[in-house]
Amino acid sequence: MTHSPFGTVVAPALTPFQADGAADAGGFVTHARWLLSAGCTGLAPFGTTSEGPSLSMTERKALLRALLDAGIDGAKLLPGTGLASLPETVELTRHAVDAGCGGVLLLPPFFFKGVSDEGVYRFYAQVIERVADSRLRVYLYHIPAMSGVGFSLPLIRRLREVFPEVVVGLKDSTGDWAHTKSLIEALPGFHVYSGAETALMDNLRTGGAGCICAGANVNAALMRKLADAPRAVGAERQQATITAIRAALQAKALIPSLKAVAAAIHKDSGWYATRPPLLPLTVAEGAALTASLAAAGFAL
Amino acid sequence: MTHSPFGTVVAPALTPFQADGAADAGGFVTHARWLLSAGCTGLAPFGTTSEGPSLSMTERKALLRALLDAGIDGAKLLPGTGLASLPETVELTRHAVDAGCGGVLLLPPFFFKGVSDEGVYRFYAQVIERVADSRLRVYLYHIPAMSGVGFSLPLIRRLREVFPEVVVGLKDSTGDWAHTKSLIEALPGFHVYSGAETALMDNLRTGGAGCICAGANVNAALMRKLADAPRAVGAERQQATITAIRAALQAKALIPSLKAVAAAIHKDSGWYATRPPLLPLTVAEGAALTASLAAAGFAL
Repeated sequence: MTHSPFGTVVAPALTPFQADGAADAGGFVTHARWLLSAGCTGLAPFGTTSEGPSLSMTERKALLRALLDAGIDGAKLLPGTGLASLPETVELTRHAVDAGCGGVLLLPPFFFKGVSDEGVYRFYAQVIERVADSRLRVYLYHIPAMSGVGFSLPLIRRLREVFPEVVVGLKDSTGDWAHTKSLIEALPGFHVYSGAETALMDNLRTGGAGCICAGANVNAALMRKLADAPRAVGAERQQATITAIRAALQAKALIPSLKAVAAAIHKDSGWYATRPPLLPLTVAEGAALTASLAAAGFAL
Repeated sequence: MTHSPFGTVVAPALTPFQADGAADAGGFVTHARWLLSAGCTGLAPFGTTSEGPSLSMTERKALLRALLDAGIDGAKLLPGTGLASLPETVELTRHAVDAGCGGVLLLPPFFFKGVSDEGVYRFYAQVIERVADSRLRVYLYHIPAMSGVGFSLPLIRRLREVFPEVVVGLKDSTGDWAHTKSLIEALPGFHVYSGAETALMDNLRTGGAGCICAGANVNAALMRKLADAPRAVGAERQQATITAIRAALQAKALIPSLKAVAAAIHKDSGWYATRPPLLPLTVAEGAALTASLAAAGFAL
């Protein structure tokens, strides 16, 4: 069992947008506070669920600053700072470290496809060497369905061996529990997170770090209950409910569906808004989602 | 036949890097001038071949400025300004228009996959509406193997219908001539470029705009000869030579191979350098490339 400093239930916090399309820092802070009070042990702003790649560097810096200015503990923040370009990844990563974030969740460079392990290694090595800060903690973000570039086990081992104090964990967003399990077993002491809450119980029972998962944006309380006692009587039932809720959340597009639920949570229909290329749910689709969530055992 | 203002042979100009990894503006200007003197009718800096997605916004702006400061005509420049985020795409596109570029080659947002035509439409529509400049000319960049997001014919037609003065062309980097041909035939008056020089003769004979192609970085003279008289006696033979040279260039990794040839052209081994995640050719690989290029009929 490895205890990650970010804990077991980490939310890739959704990003709200104003009517003019700009990021809504006030709504973002409100949501972040709500997530921590609902049971999240950490936050991963600017992940995929956060529409992080749709935000500018300037927006990411300003939104991170807003969280810290609101008194949220930087040690609980694991922002996404990986961009397609090396210099901008260095700049954003350095900014996060200087701001006091406990770590960064780092995508591989995601434009070129078919790149070699050696090329990805050099990207990470140069980021770490250029940030050059002993406080830096890197979590590898393995989401090949979006990035088109992933991490082989030899590549993870090499990064960990060369940078043992820095490269300390990974988020596995393959959705393939057998793959996550193989990483947990192959990498003792490494903080291996599942990228979906459907594997939360199995992850923790196998000695993983927990989940950094979209559904934590709306369903953190139940996840936290399970995460705090993953072998307790009733854990299987809790996991089944969490899994059923996740299925309802992703029956249509996952991120827009989460934003529709956030609109209900925060009583603000502005939360529906997504940034292109993502499309928001219609209000009718949101109502249908509410009904299917209720059938799955989700209480707002 | 549609005559694009960028002409028939457009090079996605390679980007040289200094020993410390920084972009080499001086070498970039030297190469750009050489390309225009060798026969290129236009330049598309910051494309895929340019490692554009590996450059920061700051670097792209500075490199574009260096070309213009060196006296290169902005009307011949078609820079890549498409990023994963909408606000940064707007900023970089506006910068290119303000700098006097004749157009921009615009990638779709390339992080999220499986997005809808409607979502991609809204991305482009918002870029065009926010740049809000009558000088803007957009060429759609269709390279699904890298971006993971492409353009259906209905999407292209819709963008063209709504923004007829702005959305004026497309680069088809599928490498599938049947696909490019279908676009040329379906979109009269639209500037349809082939993304590889292997289709240069067919493209021009069918009424396309020419090619925006990697190989123009080293082989523009022969391409221009063919492009100026694509139905002349000997055109088939010229195309066969161009195609054989391209095959040699991409026998190993295409972009690093082009940089090895650029090192020979500019007599500067610093040209070998790529930015991670791409890896440079070794000097031995470069020597093997030179031999296979010579066998294909390529004269330095």
